[in-house]
Formats: sequence, C-alpha cells, structure tokens
Amino acid sequence: MRELYHEQLESVVADLVAMTEQVKVATRRATQALFTADVELAESVISADVHIDERRVSIEDRSFDLLARQQPVAGDLRMLVAALRMVADLERMGDLAVHIAKVARLRYPDHALPPSAEPVMKEMADVAEMMVAAASEIVANRDVEAAAELEREDEIMDRLRRANFRTLLSDGWEHGVEPAVDVALLGRYYERIADHAVSMARRVIYLVTGEHPAPVS
Amino acid sequence: MRELYHEQLESVVADLVAMTEQVKVATRRATQALFTADVELAESVISADVHIDERRVSIEDRSFDLLARQQPVAGDLRMLVAALRMVADLERMGDLAVHIAKVARLRYPDHALPPSAEPVMKEMADVAEMMVAAASEIVANRDVEAAAELEREDEIMDRLRRANFRTLLSDGWEHGVEPAVDVALLGRYYERIADHAVSMARRVIYLVTGEHPAPVS
Repeated sequence: MRELYHEQLESVVADLVAMTEQVKVATRRATQALFTADVELAESVISADVHIDERRVSIEDRSFDLLARQQPVAGDLRMLVAALRMVADLERMGDLAVHIAKVARLRYPDHALPPSAEPVMKEMADVAEMMVAAASEIVANRDVEAAAELEREDEIMDRLRRANFRTLLSDGWEHGVEPAVDVALLGRYYERIADHAVSMARRVIYLVTGEHPAPVS
Repeated sequence: MRELYHEQLESVVADLVAMTEQVKVATRRATQALFTADVELAESVISADVHIDERRVSIEDRSFDLLARQQPVAGDLRMLVAALRMVADLERMGDLAVHIAKVARLRYPDHALPPSAEPVMKEMADVAEMMVAAASEIVANRDVEAAAELEREDEIMDRLRRANFRTLLSDGWEHGVEPAVDVALLGRYYERIADHAVSMARRVIYLVTGEHPAPVS
C-alpha cells in the first residue's frame, strides 16, 4: 500500500517534468514558426496545446486523489500542493506559446518581425526556452540552488524587455503601428513564460525549505 | 477541536473574499489613475500591492496548515486546494492592476490614453471590475450558476479586445507608436484580469461539483 503510494507520488513528479518538457518544445517550435514564418509549424503548436491541457487535468486529478486518500504530511503534502500550483503555471506557459504561434499564423506569409526587432526577440526567445529547461531540471532534482539562480536569469529578461521597447520606440522605427504592437506583445509573451518558470522555481524552494521566497513584483 | 477547525476553514474563505475585494479596489483605483492622470493615486495602488501579497502568504500558510493538521476530506479538501489556487490568481490580478497604474505614472503629467482609445478602454475597465466583483460573490456564495455565467461575460471582453485593436490599427490613428503600444498592453492587462476572474469561477465549479470545466484556450 505505502509502496504503491510512493510510486504514485513519483509518477506525479515525473509527469510534471514531462509536462515542463512539452512546454519547452511548444516554446521552441513557436519561436521557430515565428522566425521562419512557418504556418504549418505554428498550426502544430496550436493544435498540440490540447495535450498540455490534458496532462494538467491528469496531474491535477491524481494529486487531488492522493491528497484525499493518503492524507500525506510534511514533504509529500508540500509536493502535491506544489504540483497543483505548478500545473497552473505550465498550462499558462503553453497558452503563451500558442499566442506566439498565433501571431506567426496571423502574419503569414509575411514575417511578423521586422528585421530590426529580430536580434533582441531571438535573445528573449532563447532565454525563455533556457529558463523552461532549467525549471524542468529544478523540478526533477528539487534543486534549490538552481532555483535561486533562475531568479537572476530573470534580470536578463528584464534588460531584454527594455531593449525591445527601445527598438520599437526609436526614431529609426519605420514599420508603423501594427508590427510595433506585435513586437511589444511578443516580448511580453516571452517575458511571461520566463516569469512562470521563476514561479515554478520558487515553488520548489517552498517545497524543499518550507519557506516562502519574497514575492516577485 | 472540530469547531475550531470549521472556524479556521471559514476564515480562509472569508479572507479569500476580502482579498478579492482588495483586488477589485486596486483595479478600480488603477483605472481612475489612468483616466484622470492622477499620479498620487497611481502611486497608492503600486504601494498597496504589498498588502495583497501579504494576504496571499497568510491564506496560503493557513490553508497548508489546515491540510497538514486536519487532513480534511471531500468538500473541505477541495475548498482548501481551490483556495491555494485562487490566491495565485488574485495575486496576479493585483500585479496587473499595478501594471495599469505604472502606465499612468510613466506618462504623467500626460494622459496615457489618446481620446479616441478612451471609450473602448473604459468599457474594458468596467467589465474587468465587474467580473472581479462577480468573482467575489461567486466565492462567497459558492454560486455555480453565477460562475457559469461569468464565462459568458468573458465573451464581451473578447469583443472589446478586438474593438480596441481596430481603433489603434485604423487609418485614423494619428498618435504614433508609443500610445498604440500603451493601448495594446493596457487592453491586455484588463483582459487578463478578466481571465483570472473566470479562472476563479471555474475553481468554484470544481469545488462544488468535483468536475473540471473544459479548459479555457
């Protein structure tokens, strides 16, 4: 009985890591669709989101079931509560990847990004994907040190966000309003993916230490 | 012992309702700061957010404590799990109100909104505030019917979002890139506040019925 319980608990964690990998792939593919104006790839990101949502429901139901039947305490309880919170982050990250793919689809056959906006956006995309990959490792290994480090990565994203705004608000911007709005929103989507990765890392800190890190603004 | 437990459980729900009211006030005041270019009001929204964050920590700690000590089952367990999820929505809604206030502060002494963007944005602000107020009632009364209705309100927000984009992408838009980006982002903040209100309503449906509503895209 206890053995089955621990297997089920471990399978929740394994699924959480697998869901984070799904989100990482969705982010990477959405970025590729955006930068190459690949409408089929964009469509595939959009239609694959249903699998991320299904996994959320599955993890939620199993976590809840374990809470209800096994009445776990201490670390196991914190793990299940953290899982219930992290799936909400992950579902939202999947939605944000879909938003990116939808911009690519909307502007097809054109490229959504004017060339002058590409370098900073590519950096934002790379940092976001890297932070999702780090979140996956952090959850898999309950790695508090790496979790604290991820918060510092987020400062890089913050600098990139400001650089992105400088580009589209500069006098040299000659692409008009529509691409500017696309670029502003795309920057925001990547930034939010990064924020959710940080939020997952913070839940791992709480999970392991029982301490709330100071709130993110 | 059981009586104290039920008091504590009810106090978590009462605090959740109070936190929703705080968010409603933050949203309303941020809107007022935005439409009247009131920088002091904007500052007060920004500095009051710490109280929303504190309440999150307090609700989280107490919910977790009840889960750990009382090992609740069925409805009580679902209530506590829902509370842990809803505080994450509410904290984020508070952050979004802060984002709105920060746009007002950044553009002060100017008005951030060009007059032509004001009517639709005012409707978005009103719908968002109304949806937060509805979420508060829905949580207080665990009202599944009102929760299902809130999802329909969200369609109004969707129409307003499209109208907002039409304004800033129309040929008549003569305010340039910066106000267009402000208007696009502000619209998104109100839309996200509304999305989180719907997410809270969906958690009430799960709480009362035990069924997951179909995922929001």
